Amino acid sequence: MEEHQAVSEIHEEEAHERHHHPDDNSIYIGKKDVMGYVLAAVTQFNRGSAEVSIKARGKAISRAVDVAEIVRNRFVPGAKVKGIAIKTEDLQSEDGKMVKVSAIEIILAR
Amino acid sequence: MEEHQAVSEIHEEEAHERHHHPDDNSIYIGKKDVMGYVLAAVTQFNRGSAEVSIKARGKAISRAVDVAEIVRNRFVPGAKVKGIAIKTEDLQSEDGKMVKVSAIEIILAR
Repeated sequence: MEEHQAVSEIHEEEAHERHHHPDDNSIYIGKKDVMGYVLAAVTQFNRGSAEVSIKARGKAISRAVDVAEIVRNRFVPGAKVKGIAIKTEDLQSEDGKMVKVSAIEIILAR
Repeated sequence: MEEHQAVSEIHEEEAHERHHHPDDNSIYIGKKDVMGYVLAAVTQFNRGSAEVSIKARGKAISRAVDVAEIVRNRFVPGAKVKGIAIKTEDLQSEDGKMVKVSAIEIILAR
């Protein structure tokens, strides 16, 4: 449980953002402004993707839901929530300790 | 979008907690410690509920995912995620303005 709460100190979202392939359909939600991620998702759809996967860990999970809701309600009206999955990941924190962190994936499809 | 971000100032989770019926299967996630909500969910299962619905708005959404994950991984091993839904709710903030807030419902079943 404490491990779950320690998540916010890890900032693994940024690591995700650095490593993610620009040609997959995933948007990794970090600590930046919501609208930046909304724009990224809308851009994916406008490039012809049928699906966009919005992924987040820890405290960024709430922001991922905001992004999905704003995209489908305001920018891509035909987009629907195709699936939502939650899981627990084991991560190594900066001091080398293994910690557990909740993660979410929201798949939007049109 | 700003409305979505203003959510955290509303603290509607507490209003939820005050008003919720003790005999339904919903756990409303607010700002308290994760383990308190975990205990509430485990108690629901132990009283014979086949399902527990974990609900949250705004920044508490991340905590709702933590609660669901901790319950099913550590305390109720047979529990599975039966469904997850996200939506946008219109709420009245303290200054009377209508704001939009993301919400999640996670249904655990065993």
